Amino acid sequence: MSVNPNASIEITAFGWVPEFAQGVVRDLRARWALEEAGLDYRVRLLGQERPAEYLKEQPFDQVPCFRDGEVRIFESGAIVQYIGEKSEALLPRDPQGKYRAIQWTYAALNSVEPAIINLVLIDVFFAGEEWAKLRRPGAVDFVRLKLKRVSEWLGDKQWLEGDRFTIGDLVMVTTLRFLRHTDLVGQFPNLDAFVKRAQERPAFKQALADQLAAFAANEPQPEPEGAAA
Amino acid sequence: MSVNPNASIEITAFGWVPEFAQGVVRDLRARWALEEAGLDYRVRLLGQERPAEYLKEQPFDQVPCFRDGEVRIFESGAIVQYIGEKSEALLPRDPQGKYRAIQWTYAALNSVEPAIINLVLIDVFFAGEEWAKLRRPGAVDFVRLKLKRVSEWLGDKQWLEGDRFTIGDLVMVTTLRFLRHTDLVGQFPNLDAFVKRAQERPAFKQALADQLAAFAANEPQPEPEGAAA
Repeated sequence: MSVNPNASIEITAFGWVPEFAQGVVRDLRARWALEEAGLDYRVRLLGQERPAEYLKEQPFDQVPCFRDGEVRIFESGAIVQYIGEKSEALLPRDPQGKYRAIQWTYAALNSVEPAIINLVLIDVFFAGEEWAKLRRPGAVDFVRLKLKRVSEWLGDKQWLEGDRFTIGDLVMVTTLRFLRHTDLVGQFPNLDAFVKRAQERPAFKQALADQLAAFAANEPQPEPEGAAA
Repeated sequence: MSVNPNASIEITAFGWVPEFAQGVVRDLRARWALEEAGLDYRVRLLGQERPAEYLKEQPFDQVPCFRDGEVRIFESGAIVQYIGEKSEALLPRDPQGKYRAIQWTYAALNSVEPAIINLVLIDVFFAGEEWAKLRRPGAVDFVRLKLKRVSEWLGDKQWLEGDRFTIGDLVMVTTLRFLRHTDLVGQFPNLDAFVKRAQERPAFKQALADQLAAFAANEPQPEPEGAAA
C-alpha cells in the first residue's frame, strides 16, 4: 500500500525527469496498480543516463522494470496485468471479464497511445521542426478520431466495461493523461469525466504523490550564482 | 487446425484488401496462433466498408474480433494471449515463463510497432506529402534504433526467451513483417533469420495461405472493357 524499502516487490523509476514528464512517467501505471492491489513495493531509482547493463533488464532502456521474487518483467502493460492476476480488485476472474479488461490494456497501448505519443513528440521534442508544423493538424485529427472511438464506446458507463474498474481503465487513463498539455480530452465530456473519476481514486493519488516525491527529492541543484559568468 | 465453417471459434477478417496490406493484416496473428494451438476456427469476412454496428464489437473498426462461445475479445494482442492460455505450446505455465512471453507481446505492440507503423504511414499513405519527405530520415533512424534493441536482446538465441517459441515471438514477427517494403530488418542478420525461421513454421504458412485465399476469392472484378469509354 506504500513505498517500503523492505518490500519484496521492486520497480524501477527515474530519480528525476524534466517537468513535462513529471506525473506521466510509465512507472505510474505500476505504482497505481500496486496501490489498488494493496501491495507494498520498493523503488530502484535510475539516473537519466542508465548503465549499459540496464539493457539486459529492459532492452528499450525505459522504466519500469518489475521484480517479484523470481519473476522479472518489463513493459508497463505486462506488469499491470501481472499485478491484476494477484488481485481480483483489478482483474475479474471469469474468462470474459478477464479478457475484456486485458483487451483494453492492449487497446490503450496499441490503438490509442501511438496517436497520442505522436502528438507529444510533435509538441515537445520536435516543436521547432518544419515537418512537425506541417504534420500537426493531421496528427491532432488522428488523436481526435481515437478519442471519439473511446468516447462512443464509453457512453454513459462509469468504466470501459461497466461498473467495475479494471486494469483496462487504469492503462487507458494513464494513456489519455499524456494529452494533458492540450484540451483534446476536454472536448469529449464523458472521457474527461472518466479521467477525473479515475484520478479521484485514493490509489491514484498515492501513486502520483510517490512518483512526484522522488522528483522533488532529486531536483537538480541550480548552478551557484556567478558560476556562468 | 484449419478454417472450418462449423468451428465454435470465430474471427473477423477482411474479404479483400489492397496488395500492400495482403499478408500482413492483423487477423494473421489470430490465425497463426490458432494453427499453432491446433484449434479450428471459422471466419466472418467483412467488406472495406463495415456496418456501423461493427463499432459495438470493435470500437476502432479494425479486424480481428474473436469469439469463443461466450467470450468475445478484440485487439490482436489480447486474442493471441487468450489462445495462448488454451495451449501450453504458445504460452508457458510457470509465472516467469508466462509473463516473459506476455511482456514481449506488449513490447512488440507498444515499444516496436508504433515506430514501424509510423514509417508505413509515411511510405504508403502520406508518400506525396512534404512533411513525410522531411520526416522520413528521422523515422527510419527511429525504426533502426528499435530493431537494434531487439537484435541485441535476441543475440544468438533462437527465440526471444531462448529455445521455446511463444506468443511473444509470434507478435514480434508479425510486427517486423510490416517492414517488408524496406530492407531494414535485413540490416540485422539475426533478426532477419528470426523472422525467416518463424515464417518456416507450418502453422505460419497455413495461416498466411488462408488469409491470402480469402483475398484471391474476393478480388474485385475489373471493369468490362469499354465500360470507361
